[in-house]
Amino acid sequence: MTRQVRPPRGFRDFPPDIMLLRKSLMGKLENVFRSYGFDPIDTPALEYWEILAGKYGEEAESRLIWRFKDPWSGREYALRYDLTVPLARFMATHKGLPLPFKRYHIGPVWRHEEPQKGRYREFYQCDADIVGSPYPEADAEIVNLTVDAIKSLGFESGFTVRLNDRRLLRGIFEEELRLENVIPVYRAIDKLDKIGVDGVRSELAKLSLSEPTIDKIIGIISVSGTPEEVLDEAERKYGANKNVADAVNHLRETVALVGEKDKVKIDLSLVRGLDYYTGPILEVVLDKPRIGSVAGGGRYDKLIGMFLGEDIPATGVSIGIERIIDAGLELGIYNLNKKTVTLAQVVVLKRDPTIYQYAWNLANALRRSGIPTRIDLGRTGHRVQRRKAQRLGIPLLVFIGEKEASTGTATIYHTGCGQRVEAKRESVVEAAKALLEKCGE
Amino acid sequence: MTRQVRPPRGFRDFPPDIMLLRKSLMGKLENVFRSYGFDPIDTPALEYWEILAGKYGEEAESRLIWRFKDPWSGREYALRYDLTVPLARFMATHKGLPLPFKRYHIGPVWRHEEPQKGRYREFYQCDADIVGSPYPEADAEIVNLTVDAIKSLGFESGFTVRLNDRRLLRGIFEEELRLENVIPVYRAIDKLDKIGVDGVRSELAKLSLSEPTIDKIIGIISVSGTPEEVLDEAERKYGANKNVADAVNHLRETVALVGEKDKVKIDLSLVRGLDYYTGPILEVVLDKPRIGSVAGGGRYDKLIGMFLGEDIPATGVSIGIERIIDAGLELGIYNLNKKTVTLAQVVVLKRDPTIYQYAWNLANALRRSGIPTRIDLGRTGHRVQRRKAQRLGIPLLVFIGEKEASTGTATIYHTGCGQRVEAKRESVVEAAKALLEKCGE
Repeated sequence: MTRQVRPPRGFRDFPPDIMLLRKSLMGKLENVFRSYGFDPIDTPALEYWEILAGKYGEEAESRLIWRFKDPWSGREYALRYDLTVPLARFMATHKGLPLPFKRYHIGPVWRHEEPQKGRYREFYQCDADIVGSPYPEADAEIVNLTVDAIKSLGFESGFTVRLNDRRLLRGIFEEELRLENVIPVYRAIDKLDKIGVDGVRSELAKLSLSEPTIDKIIGIISVSGTPEEVLDEAERKYGANKNVADAVNHLRETVALVGEKDKVKIDLSLVRGLDYYTGPILEVVLDKPRIGSVAGGGRYDKLIGMFLGEDIPATGVSIGIERIIDAGLELGIYNLNKKTVTLAQVVVLKRDPTIYQYAWNLANALRRSGIPTRIDLGRTGHRVQRRKAQRLGIPLLVFIGEKEASTGTATIYHTGCGQRVEAKRESVVEAAKALLEKCGE
Repeated sequence: MTRQVRPPRGFRDFPPDIMLLRKSLMGKLENVFRSYGFDPIDTPALEYWEILAGKYGEEAESRLIWRFKDPWSGREYALRYDLTVPLARFMATHKGLPLPFKRYHIGPVWRHEEPQKGRYREFYQCDADIVGSPYPEADAEIVNLTVDAIKSLGFESGFTVRLNDRRLLRGIFEEELRLENVIPVYRAIDKLDKIGVDGVRSELAKLSLSEPTIDKIIGIISVSGTPEEVLDEAERKYGANKNVADAVNHLRETVALVGEKDKVKIDLSLVRGLDYYTGPILEVVLDKPRIGSVAGGGRYDKLIGMFLGEDIPATGVSIGIERIIDAGLELGIYNLNKKTVTLAQVVVLKRDPTIYQYAWNLANALRRSGIPTRIDLGRTGHRVQRRKAQRLGIPLLVFIGEKEASTGTATIYHTGCGQRVEAKRESVVEAAKALLEKCGE
């Protein structure tokens, strides 16, 4: 009977305290998305397996996607792995939407990860994407929106948007340096942010690359400076390559439109794992705690074409709300002291039907006025009612006893400032609002 | 390539127009839930299969629950079938939450239904439940909240809350009439609302019941009148039965606390399908269209005990938002003319970097002020930009050309009232807000 009373391994319940925080943060993101003119969509939790197949790279598809066969239809289904491939499928399903199509999508995705601290099998993504513009201004809008989004979540500074371009990687490492097996090289340089230049050098040394090749790789990925300086240097070294030249021009125009340039860094070691990126890629890292990226995205001009048959350019970002919440709690930016939305508790002083009915009506009047209100449902004494209200942090108590019921009044008490007022029945709402405003919600 | 570009059968995408409606309606429900002091929780989409097994009745468990075996762990998982069993599991996982625990939960559930009009394999439920009170006041709060919730969705009248009690069914049909195989009888009487007395009589006749028994069944389920009258009649006929007496007393106290009594009807033919109900049950039906119930719920005092090992009483309601949306669209209560959140479109009159940068900065200023704003990302001419804005129903156009960029101004035009104003850069936000207020968003 009590064999298994937990959510599945790697899955989480969200009790009210954490849920109130989650909802408030997602509401803030939604406001930022909307301010840029992005509209909401939703897609199913399940897609046919073949929709996801061939989009994410080998590891994701062999190991990380939750997939199963429906015994009735024999069809293979998968739980969505991100919100980007479903968007691409959506664009092919809903042909003829006006372009550019700017959508946001906040919802859970599922990954068959080995659960560990900060890594879950079900987690929310908060995505904003622009479909239909190949231009740097779309990428710049995504960068600006990302900066505003992270700031809206309470991280005023202390974060960096790392920017690179898949064409720089391809042009330099695959076309100019002619590396044979490039995947392990990308895996090594992607760690620069974590393990430093020496770390990357020793990783590269394991790949039986020549010393001069390693020097060239280190030489390019450790270029630093302002975005313009890094781009100038990339151009100086490899600008004859068309992919490099295209990427440099694209990123220059992008950066020129970014509002807060001190937040942005061109980082030639940034790779990002997913297969579908084709142009600019971005990632947001916090100065502390060092928990990996808290947002990531990029341009994927070929993904929609895989469903639609013709390419539509697209670019976007996914805000990693789960890591941000973990980080914000660790840094003390967020705290969980809000345990309920309830602002007022009607305390019934005596178990008597007439008194209870009077109190009940007052509770309903408070509710109709917009004040979240509770009333005793357990036939408990007034001390128990007060203790429960205190435990939930409900600031306002409205006492109803024989005196109040017979005189048509209520005694209102704010637990924060200790102020007590008596009010006539018809002005209880007004008095309650005044006390909440004066002494805090 | 374009083999399959649809969501799975029975699943739906939600483009912005319908999504904006869905979000607005769920926001209204959330406000009602919060006004009664209910707090949000969330639970995973997946539960271990054994959590759901044995809770819903045979049909649901053999056919309607999406379940699959994880090939890695060999464990059986199921997509949640409703939000009530996960709540019961949640209460056992999170022991020691202060009671009564009042939670709301808005989220998708999955059922392996045969898809048809109005019936989907993935749909949202909006649930509010009170855990920890065995008393009628908790059931009455659920009824009041249900009435407020349906009204908040735009159905001011034209609906009825049908109320019954599982103990009345058990006491009358199983204990007093001593029916042997009661399930098909319940299935027959549950159709009274749809097929009328004669229809139910002919259904019952097929079950080889004696004529006097059929008369008794029809006699009790067709009792009508005010809630008090129906309860009096049930008591007069079968009040010697303890279950009947308990239910009559419980429902009397419940109805006494219901605010809008004209919305509530005691309906002795109401059954509801789920196994776990133990006391009062309720259902909301619309006068039109006749689409079945749009909300349902009841008391389930034994369900939490199946996980926790000790019973905790609970009662709640699930608002069927999907049917309500279908009904509201059919009745014209809702319409889908809102295609975007965007209120302002900055129209760039000439493709020139200086002008674009000026327009870009203005767009960002409008966004920061809270006005959802778009700007051309497609390097299109101003006619195309205007046409796109019109197609989305964006009311405000902010024109930026050479004149505006060089004089530090903007020309603002409201497409609704046709009013045009010129504003200095620093007062564009103010002017835009004034126009939106005057001529509509």
